[in-house]
Amino acid sequence: MAERMHKNMDKIPEPTLRRLPWYLSSAKLMKEKGETYVSSTQISRQINIDASQIAKDLSYVNISGRTRVGYEIDRLVDVLEDFLGFTNMHRAYLFGVGSLGGALLRDSGLAHFGLEIVGAFDINPRLVGTAINGIPIYHTDDFERHIKTDGVKIGVLTVPINIAQEITDKMTEGGIKAVWNFTPFRIRVSEGIVVQNTSLYAHLAVMFNRLNELVKK
Amino acid sequence: MAERMHKNMDKIPEPTLRRLPWYLSSAKLMKEKGETYVSSTQISRQINIDASQIAKDLSYVNISGRTRVGYEIDRLVDVLEDFLGFTNMHRAYLFGVGSLGGALLRDSGLAHFGLEIVGAFDINPRLVGTAINGIPIYHTDDFERHIKTDGVKIGVLTVPINIAQEITDKMTEGGIKAVWNFTPFRIRVSEGIVVQNTSLYAHLAVMFNRLNELVKK
Repeated sequence: MAERMHKNMDKIPEPTLRRLPWYLSSAKLMKEKGETYVSSTQISRQINIDASQIAKDLSYVNISGRTRVGYEIDRLVDVLEDFLGFTNMHRAYLFGVGSLGGALLRDSGLAHFGLEIVGAFDINPRLVGTAINGIPIYHTDDFERHIKTDGVKIGVLTVPINIAQEITDKMTEGGIKAVWNFTPFRIRVSEGIVVQNTSLYAHLAVMFNRLNELVKK
Repeated sequence: MAERMHKNMDKIPEPTLRRLPWYLSSAKLMKEKGETYVSSTQISRQINIDASQIAKDLSYVNISGRTRVGYEIDRLVDVLEDFLGFTNMHRAYLFGVGSLGGALLRDSGLAHFGLEIVGAFDINPRLVGTAINGIPIYHTDDFERHIKTDGVKIGVLTVPINIAQEITDKMTEGGIKAVWNFTPFRIRVSEGIVVQNTSLYAHLAVMFNRLNELVKK
């Protein structure tokens, strides 16, 4: 336990991890334009983040820049893609083939960022046994059986809020180690389970509220 | 300008706005279970957030709880849904009908949270003139013409990164006031334009990295 806590302190901070994809996009754009080197100042100008912050964030990945020249773009793109895990395919299950779940199954773009959904679970008899975008939909009761052979570690959660916690518990008891939560419910997990919340609804709420503020002015 | 800055300071903080949908989900669940009152302590237990934080966050919305009893659930749900803007329909355009853009057009669940996508824009001749889920796809060149009659204020950005900035500029010049950015590119906008970034890829990066940390242990 002490071991774990010590290691956690060394790991890359989440805000840094969240910014790295911006630098990757920026570097890819520069590469497209035919550049061979890029400095943190150039990235800074393009995406409006402090250059010292960029240099500090990039110090976590295995690349070093040259004074006045910057980072070699090809290497920066490769190192970042690798570091962010976009070059390895990570297999995942999706739970809840409703409107959003179905949409995510159809979004093959996720594969370009290392996520391959290999199976989906639902209890709707009209869905079970069918497939979306080539991804088979199984009955939720068969999850334990499938995960034993598939060894999947990531679960995408797109169920209704009233079963969000129950399905999360089922997932993690079955061996899922990371839950990508798209529901507006705040799920509880035991220590050591990774959770990422992508609340589309929270983003909408912020947008609507800020728009209202504008109108009031 | 001073006026605007003064007003901004009074507005509800973004972290609070992002937490409110959790309380709404929690209250809805309690309501389903037949409860009529809910206290911040009960919500706290359900979603693992400090009760004093919950009470403070709820002080921004027009509802007051009673000592020992808490908030009336029906009213809490109504007030939160209204405050978050989920009860009014907000019309939006979507830009870039690729894999993710197409998926979002098919996700009719967004309408339950107040977002109605009324039109999409792309330059792909195979898409222009067709519709997805009843939503017409127009040529990007026709955006200025459409927005003049539609008066849409929200734009959903799902274009490739190499045109993310260009399309953002086009949107805001045409009258879009809020950009929901799903691209991994960090867009720049002028003051007064609302931006919400939903970076699925950043969430994936965090998840992959944390999973790797687990494996290393």
